[in-house]
Amino acid sequence: MVNLSLKDAHSLAVKCLLANGCDEANAEAAAGRMMQAEGDLCASHGLFRLPWYCSGVNSGRVNGKAKPTIEQLAPAVVRLDGDGGFAPLGQEIGHHALVECTRQNGIAALAVTNMFHIAAMWPEVERLADEGLCAMAFTASYPYVAPAGGIKPLFGTNPMGFAWPRKDAPPLVFDQASSAMARGEIQIAARDGHSVPETAGIGPDGETTTDPNVVLEGAQLGFGGYKGASLAMMIELLAGPLIGEFLSYESAADDAGKGGPPKGGELIIALDPAKFGDAEGFLAHGEKLFKAILEQEGTRLPGARRFIERKKTPQTGIEIPDSLYDTIQGLM
Amino acid sequence: MVNLSLKDAHSLAVKCLLANGCDEANAEAAAGRMMQAEGDLCASHGLFRLPWYCSGVNSGRVNGKAKPTIEQLAPAVVRLDGDGGFAPLGQEIGHHALVECTRQNGIAALAVTNMFHIAAMWPEVERLADEGLCAMAFTASYPYVAPAGGIKPLFGTNPMGFAWPRKDAPPLVFDQASSAMARGEIQIAARDGHSVPETAGIGPDGETTTDPNVVLEGAQLGFGGYKGASLAMMIELLAGPLIGEFLSYESAADDAGKGGPPKGGELIIALDPAKFGDAEGFLAHGEKLFKAILEQEGTRLPGARRFIERKKTPQTGIEIPDSLYDTIQGLM
Repeated sequence: MVNLSLKDAHSLAVKCLLANGCDEANAEAAAGRMMQAEGDLCASHGLFRLPWYCSGVNSGRVNGKAKPTIEQLAPAVVRLDGDGGFAPLGQEIGHHALVECTRQNGIAALAVTNMFHIAAMWPEVERLADEGLCAMAFTASYPYVAPAGGIKPLFGTNPMGFAWPRKDAPPLVFDQASSAMARGEIQIAARDGHSVPETAGIGPDGETTTDPNVVLEGAQLGFGGYKGASLAMMIELLAGPLIGEFLSYESAADDAGKGGPPKGGELIIALDPAKFGDAEGFLAHGEKLFKAILEQEGTRLPGARRFIERKKTPQTGIEIPDSLYDTIQGLM
Repeated sequence: MVNLSLKDAHSLAVKCLLANGCDEANAEAAAGRMMQAEGDLCASHGLFRLPWYCSGVNSGRVNGKAKPTIEQLAPAVVRLDGDGGFAPLGQEIGHHALVECTRQNGIAALAVTNMFHIAAMWPEVERLADEGLCAMAFTASYPYVAPAGGIKPLFGTNPMGFAWPRKDAPPLVFDQASSAMARGEIQIAARDGHSVPETAGIGPDGETTTDPNVVLEGAQLGFGGYKGASLAMMIELLAGPLIGEFLSYESAADDAGKGGPPKGGELIIALDPAKFGDAEGFLAHGEKLFKAILEQEGTRLPGARRFIERKKTPQTGIEIPDSLYDTIQGLM
């Protein structure tokens, strides 16, 4: 393993992105997103993704010099055109517009379009909760998950992020796929020769299996079966047709086998609890729920681990596999 | 079984509610809701609930003569004060305000407060989709579901409803609990001596079980485990602290063992796809997804069965058990 300070890891990512056709603004934004993940010890959304970012730009699919623009579509709806770049730079611009629009209207939506969202979703919702807002975010991906009753992949693993502001504590945040397992978890199980739970997916014949290779040839399943599939379908509609963006299977067709990251959209909804009738009480009221959860042995709040790691990594730095470090060096 | 025409069933429900302290407007709205369920052959939300409605009014907890009022809290936020009555009358008033507010702003929220929501959720979202809007609804209930890692009930079974308008077809609608099973399904399994899947819940000792009686003494689990529990927690926040209403455990404390329906709130979010940048294309685009789902053998769209039944029941009428019919007669 190679140990890197967060600062050095950030510089490495920026340098690599610049060497692969990104301009300063896009490289900084994408690297910043990877560092948020690394800082929380969520390596699967960190430098691990850098080669994928680079391949996206190198194949010409991703615009490394994107200049995202915003447009007000309705009093409470803002659209961000990502100009074909990676999501983080556009989200940065869209965030401020969404906060302002939400404070004015009580609830507002940001339709993020024409971009490549290949990062975790918690940063965008957490950041809104840092502003005192409640937030939800939805994005589609590639067709990996079978519809209820079917056996062929159609929906993305379609994550949903949620955040709620807390009193004297970091926000309550979760970010979970609609599928029983993340795509990457199944790929890693296949690589390492491990089995997966039989709720994870089915083979091409529609039969349940614990062999990750068979799931990768077949289809993943929604979490909790048909209910997770319903959520995946909902997210297809919200991040696709609602905002004029790709369904997961359209995104795969657009990629046309090049193997780059999925192009598509994201819907972010923010609500200002101060405009919902309990401006004085909502924060303390939320804390009553969290207290009741934590009073039970064995519980923790979603996202809690990340906030603990986040305090440590500025001192300890992070570790990445030698192979990844070498790959990155080879990209420059 | 007693066979009733929908019209006679409606009259029966209205008469019973009037005899138990509801005024005409409240009785008509509540009966109308039960008839929507009966007409779709969802008996568990139909006349089956009438004795519960009556007991709520009789115990003095529910205001059978509620006069719901609406208030604009922000440009895109409307609050409905249910005046302590059953939800359907307030929802009727709130619906029109929400539609207007959504068309103006692109997205809007209706905070339904101070009411008793003991019906299915699909009617409110389906009705919004009938207006061409996309809709989501969330409500809490009583503490039945354990938080992730815990063993004591804290969250409600907390359903979420979703609807999407379709082209030349009834809306796409789903309405699903955050728990693996509905409360009523477990109660019915206990009554009939059937077992439940071991994903349904745990006993008071925290061990999984297939005995519904043990689950009823212990706690239900979220669908798909911790992910469903995350959704249940989210819905507690949206239908509770966000809008200044009860958490599920506060609702149980308010009931104080009387055994009536839960008092609380509901959040409804509506989005106008015509204001999200693809007014011309969103309907046809959604249909592409539905076509891709239905091309797979064994699939159907959520809610499809209900629309089929709905065409039949005006001719066939409905059937209710003799015991329920006798109970209702005894209430008048």
